[in-house]
Amino acid sequence: MLHRFEPTHFYNSFGPHPPAFEVSDGDTLLTWTLDARGKDAQGHQRAQRGNPLTGPIFVRGASPGDVLEVTLEEIRPNRRYGFCGRYVAPHTVNPYYVPRLPITEELAEWDVDASQGVARLISPEGRLAAKVWPLDPMLGCIGVAPPYKQAIATSTSGTYGGNMDYRGLRAGAVVYFPVYEPGALLFIGDGHALQGDGELVGMGIEISMDVRLTVRVLKGKRIGWPRGQDAESIFTLGNARPLEEALQYATTEMLHWLQEDYGLNAVEASILLGQCGRYEVGNVFDPAYTMVCKVAKRDLPHG
Amino acid sequence: MLHRFEPTHFYNSFGPHPPAFEVSDGDTLLTWTLDARGKDAQGHQRAQRGNPLTGPIFVRGASPGDVLEVTLEEIRPNRRYGFCGRYVAPHTVNPYYVPRLPITEELAEWDVDASQGVARLISPEGRLAAKVWPLDPMLGCIGVAPPYKQAIATSTSGTYGGNMDYRGLRAGAVVYFPVYEPGALLFIGDGHALQGDGELVGMGIEISMDVRLTVRVLKGKRIGWPRGQDAESIFTLGNARPLEEALQYATTEMLHWLQEDYGLNAVEASILLGQCGRYEVGNVFDPAYTMVCKVAKRDLPHG
Amino acid sequence: MLHRFEPTHFYNSFGPHPPAFEVSDGDTLLTWTLDARGKDAQGHQRAQRGNPLTGPIFVRGASPGDVLEVTLEEIRPNRRYGFCGRYVAPHTVNPYYVPRLPITEELAEWDVDASQGVARLISPEGRLAAKVWPLDPMLGCIGVAPPYKQAIATSTSGTYGGNMDYRGLRAGAVVYFPVYEPGALLFIGDGHALQGDGELVGMGIEISMDVRLTVRVLKGKRIGWPRGQDAESIFTLGNARPLEEALQYATTEMLHWLQEDYGLNAVEASILLGQCGRYEVGNVFDPAYTMVCKVAKRDLPHG
Amino acid sequence: MLHRFEPTHFYNSFGPHPPAFEVSDGDTLLTWTLDARGKDAQGHQRAQRGNPLTGPIFVRGASPGDVLEVTLEEIRPNRRYGFCGRYVAPHTVNPYYVPRLPITEELAEWDVDASQGVARLISPEGRLAAKVWPLDPMLGCIGVAPPYKQAIATSTSGTYGGNMDYRGLRAGAVVYFPVYEPGALLFIGDGHALQGDGELVGMGIEISMDVRLTVRVLKGKRIGWPRGQDAESIFTLGNARPLEEALQYATTEMLHWLQEDYGLNAVEASILLGQCGRYEVGNVFDPAYTMVCKVAKRDLPHG
Repeated sequence: MLHRFEPTHFYNSFGPHPPAFEVSDGDTLLTWTLDARGKDAQGHQRAQRGNPLTGPIFVRGASPGDVLEVTLEEIRPNRRYGFCGRYVAPHTVNPYYVPRLPITEELAEWDVDASQGVARLISPEGRLAAKVWPLDPMLGCIGVAPPYKQAIATSTSGTYGGNMDYRGLRAGAVVYFPVYEPGALLFIGDGHALQGDGELVGMGIEISMDVRLTVRVLKGKRIGWPRGQDAESIFTLGNARPLEEALQYATTEMLHWLQEDYGLNAVEASILLGQCGRYEVGNVFDPAYTMVCKVAKRDLPHG
Repeated sequence: MLHRFEPTHFYNSFGPHPPAFEVSDGDTLLTWTLDARGKDAQGHQRAQRGNPLTGPIFVRGASPGDVLEVTLEEIRPNRRYGFCGRYVAPHTVNPYYVPRLPITEELAEWDVDASQGVARLISPEGRLAAKVWPLDPMLGCIGVAPPYKQAIATSTSGTYGGNMDYRGLRAGAVVYFPVYEPGALLFIGDGHALQGDGELVGMGIEISMDVRLTVRVLKGKRIGWPRGQDAESIFTLGNARPLEEALQYATTEMLHWLQEDYGLNAVEASILLGQCGRYEVGNVFDPAYTMVCKVAKRDLPHG
Repeated sequence: MLHRFEPTHFYNSFGPHPPAFEVSDGDTLLTWTLDARGKDAQGHQRAQRGNPLTGPIFVRGASPGDVLEVTLEEIRPNRRYGFCGRYVAPHTVNPYYVPRLPITEELAEWDVDASQGVARLISPEGRLAAKVWPLDPMLGCIGVAPPYKQAIATSTSGTYGGNMDYRGLRAGAVVYFPVYEPGALLFIGDGHALQGDGELVGMGIEISMDVRLTVRVLKGKRIGWPRGQDAESIFTLGNARPLEEALQYATTEMLHWLQEDYGLNAVEASILLGQCGRYEVGNVFDPAYTMVCKVAKRDLPHG
Repeated sequence: MLHRFEPTHFYNSFGPHPPAFEVSDGDTLLTWTLDARGKDAQGHQRAQRGNPLTGPIFVRGASPGDVLEVTLEEIRPNRRYGFCGRYVAPHTVNPYYVPRLPITEELAEWDVDASQGVARLISPEGRLAAKVWPLDPMLGCIGVAPPYKQAIATSTSGTYGGNMDYRGLRAGAVVYFPVYEPGALLFIGDGHALQGDGELVGMGIEISMDVRLTVRVLKGKRIGWPRGQDAESIFTLGNARPLEEALQYATTEMLHWLQEDYGLNAVEASILLGQCGRYEVGNVFDPAYTMVCKVAKRDLPHG
């Protein structure tokens, strides 16, 4: 069933907040998200800064211990104006290089043309002014209510998803989250029209988005960290600091997956990851970094 | 000029060792490398374990402060037998998962068919026995003599290169190293017929290799860390623990490169990396990890 | 003014929960805390596991941007039975050593004699059975409501304090917290009769406590991280992963303190820390580690 | 037997260099060290910068697999002039604070009075000018030739010791090193008249030293990392980046020690470390950090 959800209230934390909308297993939702600073498609300030979220969506039938599957069907910038930071975050460079960073509150500004699928840098002018940047829209924030009734700021992420800032969370991806609260309580936000690995300037091209997604409940399925798949790969997401710990969680979750769903034993799963595994860096900007462990579907064993 | 170099002595450290062969700026070298445990194309033990190296190659005209450019033209397994580890390294998984790892000294064994460009797993038999693995041959070790007259074991890496275990160091790549000793003193070794990101089992498919490469001296060029390029991208390599520090070095080196050679200012270099930068994980196994920062050539500004 | 506060409800998160008790600037509070698993002085289960907290205490006059000063006057075990873990946490040892750890859910049990100031190990019996362990009672958890209306589990810590597990938070210490919510909303819990550096087994000698403390509001004072002092030293607490980042926060907070309150310039503060600074490890067990930077009062410049 | 060794050549690496002096098991050596920049007691430049070392001392009877015991009997500044850095290292503070650090090549200068056991800051003048600083002389560098014939710069450290910059390596301490080369090949250098935890400014009060030490060979004893003891404690030293990895090595080495020499089983060793263990930070400046795990002798079980 297809629902249109017009959000009116936006949360700056992933938490056990009162449901804003209810859907059933298998339903599709059309909705939209504010940009990371709280402005909508018309540029109106609708919520306070810091990745205000659309949701929570209560998914009937989802109970703690289940898995929520979210298919991202469309993520489309719904206005022209985008912005991003102008300097690489100090902790991502050699500490002795920090004094040379162009630290500033000022933003870079973008013209985003979703119909053509490209962006152009408006400001600052300079050597990049002529460049045409192909869009690759994604959601920086997606997740469910965290465990233990916590309400956790949208700056960070964890086993519940959150602000993972991974460019693989684009249309066509299917994402899986562990459920901790009745109804799962799905949130989305922080759309990026484009973002490099690591989200080095602390922002993608930040913009409001129209989003279409479909939810399913996988009863009795258990996972420890968010998982996903797209046409080419399956992947797991580890969210933690330092980066090595994020990698540990992603790797371990993939080892579980390969053994539980693909019939490999521990040695075979190790060999497959050792010779064919891939890593992608989601972000190295947020309080929890995101490291992604991937295996190409062509490398997976089949029935 | 084309030289054939038949190595007879192999070093287990990158250091200011006596030159084994001399070439000139622009020369091409045909040579071969032992496998990581010291066996050659015929399976004869020729050196002790621990990535014994072919070299050092003295490059006439290379002086401290210059850059050595190495074009990897061919890296081809020269025998059928390959091997790799059977368990993911303990420090790459959740510490609580370590007791479930299949830790063993036993190796997995491979049949490597360079003429067909594929490998097959011989042992252990099991669900992966039928899989055909496309080769992607690379050099785990490549580098020059380190600074300060150090002799550093081939287990690790640094600004001089070393055991970086990055699968991008394949035929077609051009790699750049800072020169610390007269003649640069190039070493190569530790060929992998295939290797996943991270080198999680501590080995690629380890095998002896035939190698063809061409060296050039870039006088007066200065770099801080190894750099490289292939048909699609330019890239920088940071070698350090923890992974975040490796990333810092790779990122900083790329910021230098973008500003010094591509005419970007600090803000533009930040925006380009922020929205188009890519990271790849070389290894997370060796004492120094390797993180690679990449920019696609199509994203670079042009004259 | 002296108040006795008998808690009846206990929170498992630091958050903007409804005040359980109100006091004024300068008031002294007599209260008690449950043990880390929710049992009281009589061994009755009063709350669920995971460091249930006494509080929140609303301190009249405390507003966001102020500092809350808490003088710890007495922390005294109020029963005999204590417990702790039996194995060093896997992430605190060499990953290859993990399979040799005696991982178990079983606890070690203690007889805690507050009147004599000592504990004895009841179980397991063995070489430590005869040892008399001098008590050093402390609060594992102390802090205020976090910023951004977050509710954060008592497993971790941050700028608001939390589960810092630092043995220096004993009677005689004065601790300072940034205030984020009206009334500050002070919480305490997780008393340890004794604890080593790092809280390696994930617990001190866990026990319920009688606590006496006095609160004061420092209007307009601004700090970035918890600070403290005792008879010998001033200290700052950084809470983060990895350990180096916790150290960075503690060090930076101390540099601020030395410059703002002790009249040192940046060079002098650097020299003082460089030649006289001390670090102590609070915990390396919790999601955020705690590193403490200290300067002896005898080393501080005086008027 | 007492020897006086007058060094004439100084190495800037720990490596398998030709022995400069030979002693027997149990011998005592009187010698001296240059300061970290290569100047001697008279201020004459005798070697190049970067912790030039006195040694190697060949200890008869020491073979790979043994342990070398070094008793530090006297470490005494042999001149008045000392120096140290003026700014806390950028990687030890919050990355956003780095631009506020007083980064400079300029040094702070000290008058060191060994006869009175105090130092005074000569330059910069300011609020610290009047302060009298009690000396606590120590050796920044002490260790043996590393494994695998490596020659490793004196900037860093490892299982062989090296530039550990731990203030506990003072007169009265006994230190133990694994032996990798015949004769062990002991080196010392980099004396500090005083140094805080972490060596935050990259230097203690750097000065040349007179040193008296006694060596013993412990045949067949095996250790993985340097160990030590003084009147109050036994301790282990882990040298690595990041800090948590240094802590892992120190903790694991202490668990071995407690089980092998003090009759504790794994549970008892865990409980003892958990409730009585101590950590000290050697340095967080060098390429490898040093973390020290300590247990007070009064807490150890006795026969």
